[in-house]
Amino acid sequence: SAFGSVQGGEEGPDRVLVRVQDLTPEKADQLIWLRARVHTSRAKGKQCFLVLRQQQFNVQALVAVGDRASKQMVKFAANITKESIIDVEALVRKVEQKIESCSQQDVELHIERIFVISQAEPRLPLQLEDAVRPDGEGEEEGRATVNQDTKLDNRVIDLRTTTSQAIFRLQSGVCQLFRDTLAKKGFVEIQTPKIISAASEGGANVFTVSYFKTSAYLAQSPQLYKQMCICADFDKVFCVGPVFRAEDSNTHRHLTEFVGLDIELAFNYHYHEVIDSITDTMVQIFKGLRDNFQTEIQTVNKQFPSEPFKFLEPTLRLEYTEAVAMLREAGVEMGDEDDLSTPNEKLLGRLVKEKYDTDFYVLDKYPLAVRPFYTMPDPNNPKYSNSYDMFMRGEEILSGAQRIHDAQLLTERAIHHQIDLEKIKAYIDSFRYGAPPHGGGGIGLERVCMLYLGLHNVRQTSMFPRDPKRLTP
Amino acid sequence: SAFGSVQGGEEGPDRVLVRVQDLTPEKADQLIWLRARVHTSRAKGKQCFLVLRQQQFNVQALVAVGDRASKQMVKFAANITKESIIDVEALVRKVEQKIESCSQQDVELHIERIFVISQAEPRLPLQLEDAVRPDGEGEEEGRATVNQDTKLDNRVIDLRTTTSQAIFRLQSGVCQLFRDTLAKKGFVEIQTPKIISAASEGGANVFTVSYFKTSAYLAQSPQLYKQMCICADFDKVFCVGPVFRAEDSNTHRHLTEFVGLDIELAFNYHYHEVIDSITDTMVQIFKGLRDNFQTEIQTVNKQFPSEPFKFLEPTLRLEYTEAVAMLREAGVEMGDEDDLSTPNEKLLGRLVKEKYDTDFYVLDKYPLAVRPFYTMPDPNNPKYSNSYDMFMRGEEILSGAQRIHDAQLLTERAIHHQIDLEKIKAYIDSFRYGAPPHGGGGIGLERVCMLYLGLHNVRQTSMFPRDPKRLTP
Repeated sequence: SAFGSVQGGEEGPDRVLVRVQDLTPEKADQLIWLRARVHTSRAKGKQCFLVLRQQQFNVQALVAVGDRASKQMVKFAANITKESIIDVEALVRKVEQKIESCSQQDVELHIERIFVISQAEPRLPLQLEDAVRPDGEGEEEGRATVNQDTKLDNRVIDLRTTTSQAIFRLQSGVCQLFRDTLAKKGFVEIQTPKIISAASEGGANVFTVSYFKTSAYLAQSPQLYKQMCICADFDKVFCVGPVFRAEDSNTHRHLTEFVGLDIELAFNYHYHEVIDSITDTMVQIFKGLRDNFQTEIQTVNKQFPSEPFKFLEPTLRLEYTEAVAMLREAGVEMGDEDDLSTPNEKLLGRLVKEKYDTDFYVLDKYPLAVRPFYTMPDPNNPKYSNSYDMFMRGEEILSGAQRIHDAQLLTERAIHHQIDLEKIKAYIDSFRYGAPPHGGGGIGLERVCMLYLGLHNVRQTSMFPRDPKRLTP
Repeated sequence: SAFGSVQGGEEGPDRVLVRVQDLTPEKADQLIWLRARVHTSRAKGKQCFLVLRQQQFNVQALVAVGDRASKQMVKFAANITKESIIDVEALVRKVEQKIESCSQQDVELHIERIFVISQAEPRLPLQLEDAVRPDGEGEEEGRATVNQDTKLDNRVIDLRTTTSQAIFRLQSGVCQLFRDTLAKKGFVEIQTPKIISAASEGGANVFTVSYFKTSAYLAQSPQLYKQMCICADFDKVFCVGPVFRAEDSNTHRHLTEFVGLDIELAFNYHYHEVIDSITDTMVQIFKGLRDNFQTEIQTVNKQFPSEPFKFLEPTLRLEYTEAVAMLREAGVEMGDEDDLSTPNEKLLGRLVKEKYDTDFYVLDKYPLAVRPFYTMPDPNNPKYSNSYDMFMRGEEILSGAQRIHDAQLLTERAIHHQIDLEKIKAYIDSFRYGAPPHGGGGIGLERVCMLYLGLHNVRQTSMFPRDPKRLTP
């Protein structure tokens, strides 16, 4: 038979399936097999025009009553719903006029056999072409766009868009570049537990888990475990894994579960060795994306236009006092030891971009008062600390510090912060048997992807985002 | 000063620190700086002998009253506790007789200056040399070994042993080999949520999380999300991340939290395409370990002797019926559709090893009755299914299957398994808009490392293991 429905699994035909992206004029006049989705379908008299799609690639195809196809077969083809998956045998034909609406512009397929592998339901909860339409475009013609909740509620379809495919392929690249760079630098990958017995960083904003007959918590960061590995002679470690924050923040940049790219390393004499390691890793990521993910970047830009991401080598490092001076010059009133508000961080990002032409920089030497108890004070000025944040397009993507590696000093600082010593005993005890000076930081993967691409909501760069109001899909 | 205590952090000296492993006769008569731990220390009259350690490498060092050191300095050195971290300036000297007890056998260090970077408390909760002693060795001399709970309770020290360093460097290698192999095959890395709204696989053995004003669960596997990505055209995906099982199993191979190496892919015509993809990935891991981690394997073998891990290319694939026949021939009584007990899995592993000389194989075509509802039935024999387990040294490391990709068949199978359809609605709905035939599986990282190295407890290959009785450190 030349058409029908089949179910894959066992003893299938021994066919070579061609990829859509390989359908070029070199394949002209060849008979090929192809598996693809029905992207669009339009019946017109004795013909049916289809656009067949594989990820971001698509090609025009035609079933026409004649030598190659019966009337029944054209009817069968016309009834295949959009987003169904089909196998076709078709003749590749060069076209005289470029097909502007397809990625494969120089050929079309003349279908001789067509089989449905998986039929989609006729009513789709959203249309792919609506989901990739830039805001505002086609408004006059009454064209719809799709709001974010509808997209997220129907993520299986939304992830098929060219924009989503590009975002998450780029995200996969960020993880790979992060790990490859660190592996080359001699870092060891570690796996840290997510279920923990005590909320080591104070106890606020932590999810509780029922653990057999007792309670446990979800780790807010792998920091303690990274530090234990440093105390256990692993020297330089990294981990990639989920991080949980029970914060009721409903903003464009907060998730309750995100992916942390975490680094910790022993240093010899100056904590700037740590900063340099991290900034160089970020620079390698930026370069890798620039050099290997241009297609993905351009695809996302079509729907969400943004300026190319700029960075310097070596990375710009500003001290906190310099930042405060720049903000004051711009009219902001703030004290020397005040923390930066989110709007001030954004403003500072714009000022830095104007002055230094970079979208990425490090802010070093935060006031001691605004940092956690385990942060090493600046030995030269007790009002400040050996700690830093990193920013992309004016938004924080990493917070880090030299950690106190001396149990006695750590105890003093915990008391100063009025932390219950009993609760952090295991943490402090980790430093009692010889601990090298060390520091590190944690990067939010979704934020890095969002800000690199110039997007405006972290839910766009989380495949299945979790926030206080969203637990599905 | 030639000795004292210092704290790293800012404005340290501009020294080049040499690595212990680079201390070879070529460095003889050079004055070098070194940072290391005091592995052992022995004062003897006007001399103090130290062994200095960096991870698995160590070197003998000497402070002796004379031109290079004062009486006070020798006394200072003798008082430095074991496991403290020190900086030394020392002259490298060739030795006439090899120092058998050290990794650097041809040189020793004559210390001229010595500074304590971090002093360890004088009483260590365990001794490193006890923690690496093979079971039974030195029993007659009254030498101690350290039991597993003591090791795990003091993991920061236990992880410093040569055995632990080797295990977790090899584990880091397994992850890297897994990802690199799949990236080369065109797989995309995905990040799946760990907090989920419904216990999709039935609801047993699942941890509950308090989620703001409602409840949620910890994901028992990323399977649903991997499958959604396949339905969303990602074609081939993998993920590495924590997996949670609220199972009250206190065995050598169960953890409540472990690291899952997960794979899912669309296939064209036969689910063996999936099996071949996974077994080839495992073979690449085994080859990478064999070729690049011999030092680590040998180090672990010193404490825990085992036979080298054997595998075949291509991987042996047995059908379930063949396995049942082999077991029956060995005297086991079991029905055709009975599941394999753990002892029978082990016995089968021995029988397969004898017959085929491999420690790794696939068992294919499990009885449908013993597999989850989403498993694709064998179209040729409804008693069996398109599902498989993989085994290393007779223990299961992966369970996988072709998944049902048709919403209607999935519904029928769920009803047959008496599963509440309302609870798995989102799962079933994922397949309503066109889904390609696909399959996959999940590998337990800790089990792979344990079985590859021939270890006998999965807690040895989990840095900070979690079981029903252990939540710390």
